[in-house]
Amino acid sequence: MAFIKLTYFNCKGLGEVTRMLFMYGGVDLIDYRFKDEDWPKIKQNMPFGQTPILTVDGKIANQSVAIARYAAKKVKLVGSNDWEDLEIDAIVDTINDFRIKIQLYAYEQDAAIKETRKDPLFQEIIPFYLRKLEEIAEQNGGHLAAAKLTWADFFLAGIIDYLDHLVGMNLLENSPNLQQVVQNVVSLPKVKTWIKVRPQTEA
Amino acid sequence: MAFIKLTYFNCKGLGEVTRMLFMYGGVDLIDYRFKDEDWPKIKQNMPFGQTPILTVDGKIANQSVAIARYAAKKVKLVGSNDWEDLEIDAIVDTINDFRIKIQLYAYEQDAAIKETRKDPLFQEIIPFYLRKLEEIAEQNGGHLAAAKLTWADFFLAGIIDYLDHLVGMNLLENSPNLQQVVQNVVSLPKVKTWIKVRPQTEA
Repeated sequence: MAFIKLTYFNCKGLGEVTRMLFMYGGVDLIDYRFKDEDWPKIKQNMPFGQTPILTVDGKIANQSVAIARYAAKKVKLVGSNDWEDLEIDAIVDTINDFRIKIQLYAYEQDAAIKETRKDPLFQEIIPFYLRKLEEIAEQNGGHLAAAKLTWADFFLAGIIDYLDHLVGMNLLENSPNLQQVVQNVVSLPKVKTWIKVRPQTEA
Repeated sequence: MAFIKLTYFNCKGLGEVTRMLFMYGGVDLIDYRFKDEDWPKIKQNMPFGQTPILTVDGKIANQSVAIARYAAKKVKLVGSNDWEDLEIDAIVDTINDFRIKIQLYAYEQDAAIKETRKDPLFQEIIPFYLRKLEEIAEQNGGHLAAAKLTWADFFLAGIIDYLDHLVGMNLLENSPNLQQVVQNVVSLPKVKTWIKVRPQTEA
């Protein structure tokens, strides 16, 4: 690949999975992070008003999950057949659903509405997703799909700090198998190096 | 494929794209539709409490978009290379974002909250997405990605009746290129036959 650039905020958020994937594959990614104050201007030039976007040889694509899937193909962390890819895609979209449910609480501006969402999120939604995901990680031997390292594991490892930040807790504290999924990713030598050198941000 | 079954409500909703794709490919899909009153019982056995699910030779997968992508691979309606697949995936996830924004209004139980979401949805979100999508359909000659027939077109054709139902309007009324996208799908002989014989449901 000649020229490949990710444009996103200076945070992990929805962009970190793609950064980690390209770094794992030794791809020379341009990790472009705009300043928060420039966002209103940049937003107008985004395909659907959102980031991240990926630029490859002058062509632009949006949607964080689609971009991560593309990165995973380039660094060979997809499934071995269509069914494995379905397993990976399903777990990634499930974690993404979980993220959206968390955001509906975390980003709610109206304090009264936010309060009504608190118990359902912390008492039901979070325990439900963590229990189900933990079972899957256990069945797959410390992975989320296909019983081996795939970009589904990177997806969790890339987004977990952001999710923790949104809810103000260590979501995986009592989920040893999900901790193992993350550990399997962040201990890969090239990912480990990336984590050391990347800009330090909370979320 | 030996045995392949889609389990979903008796409606188009998030399942119809997969039905249309398999019917297009001449795949012998078991189109299992449970009764609404059986849902609470069935829900407990769903991987993450949601449908549709796809069963292939005893293995189960969840997540409607992931399932549709798998179907598209089987009937050869994916892109010709990784970039085309990224284009397709991005537009599908964008339409899915649009669907979620519509649902946040349509399924809101609290009348006061629902009212606050009405103007942003009908005055801003819907016109914004339709304008952007219409531009893309025009640029791609009546398709949503890669300037040719792909499962992205099926995705819109499969979900549009459901979206129209949620908002109580004909969303594509003033979008001739998006109408063309849908028309290009529903006029395919095998899809046309399927639309004639399928159970008639509103959404």
